[in-house]
Amino acid sequence: MKTPSSLEDLIAALRCLPGVGPKSAQRMAYHLLQRDRTGAMHLAHALGHAVESVKHCSKCNNFSEQDICSMCSSAQREGDLLCVVEMPADLLMMEQAQCYRGMYFVLMGRLSPLDGVGARELPLERLVKRAQELECEVILATNFTVEGEATAHYLATLLSAQGIKVSRIARGLPVGGELEHVDSGTLAQAVFERREIAV
Amino acid sequence: MKTPSSLEDLIAALRCLPGVGPKSAQRMAYHLLQRDRTGAMHLAHALGHAVESVKHCSKCNNFSEQDICSMCSSAQREGDLLCVVEMPADLLMMEQAQCYRGMYFVLMGRLSPLDGVGARELPLERLVKRAQELECEVILATNFTVEGEATAHYLATLLSAQGIKVSRIARGLPVGGELEHVDSGTLAQAVFERREIAV
Repeated sequence: MKTPSSLEDLIAALRCLPGVGPKSAQRMAYHLLQRDRTGAMHLAHALGHAVESVKHCSKCNNFSEQDICSMCSSAQREGDLLCVVEMPADLLMMEQAQCYRGMYFVLMGRLSPLDGVGARELPLERLVKRAQELECEVILATNFTVEGEATAHYLATLLSAQGIKVSRIARGLPVGGELEHVDSGTLAQAVFERREIAV
Repeated sequence: MKTPSSLEDLIAALRCLPGVGPKSAQRMAYHLLQRDRTGAMHLAHALGHAVESVKHCSKCNNFSEQDICSMCSSAQREGDLLCVVEMPADLLMMEQAQCYRGMYFVLMGRLSPLDGVGARELPLERLVKRAQELECEVILATNFTVEGEATAHYLATLLSAQGIKVSRIARGLPVGGELEHVDSGTLAQAVFERREIAV
């Protein structure tokens, strides 16, 4: 039995999605063709439109339809802090926390030699240029994973060499966290990085 | 911060894929725009092409680009057996087992009241018509899940009422299976459906 070639093409094309293997791709293709052809056409158009119109902001490197994104051109944001995050999702979380009114720089990745992402694959020159332009403190808010930590370390060295003040967001127990339920690595770090209480 | 609208549209459109929630959709959109724009455009075209050209075979109901698929029009297949499966993937598995040379009928689903799939949502009239046309035995090869079993029971009643001979593929221990590692439901069924050995 031969699978129709356009169906085979669709299954192969769905493999470009992250985390989608041959079985999931087949299931997705069957689902779309059997139950949601409208959704499939809508997805096709959304893909085409996004690829055409989404670029990177020339200042913060985040996804943007304009050359400079709405956040970088906003008069509401303060230019005395520059926060470096890995992905746009991290920026959204920062904004939801409502704790920060400064500027951002989105790396769109992290140092990850195993995935072929070295220092050259990240827009580090543009980050240094932006930090020099703002003449401000840079807050490193990459993840506390092995790769995020390595990226933070690399950036700290790079930026300090240019005489730029660099800081790292704090590590420790989460707000509302209980010692009984926290992992031992986090607890050890929280003890190690304890803060003196000034009464 | 505002996410670009075409990016928002893409994230929403990706939700039509089965098993994709808001977080996965966001990750997929970022991945495509950041690392695989060629793949995204290819996917858009494959979706459009598949939706346009993939129809259902008028005989076996499987996906096909022609009115009658290559399998139903093949002279190599025998017309004395009709095997009913739930999905095209099941048909592929049957073919890989190389144990069957008859015709197929693909339900493209199963009775599943919880998902809103009742007898009316399945192409049962066409199945009955096809079985009468072939004047042959129908083998029910739906899954041995609760829904697959219910579907087999319903089809057996429906087809028997038309005087059509109906059979069900066998249940039991898998080939190479060990009693120690098989689940008790399967073992109980294997004992219950034991076959006499004629020496």
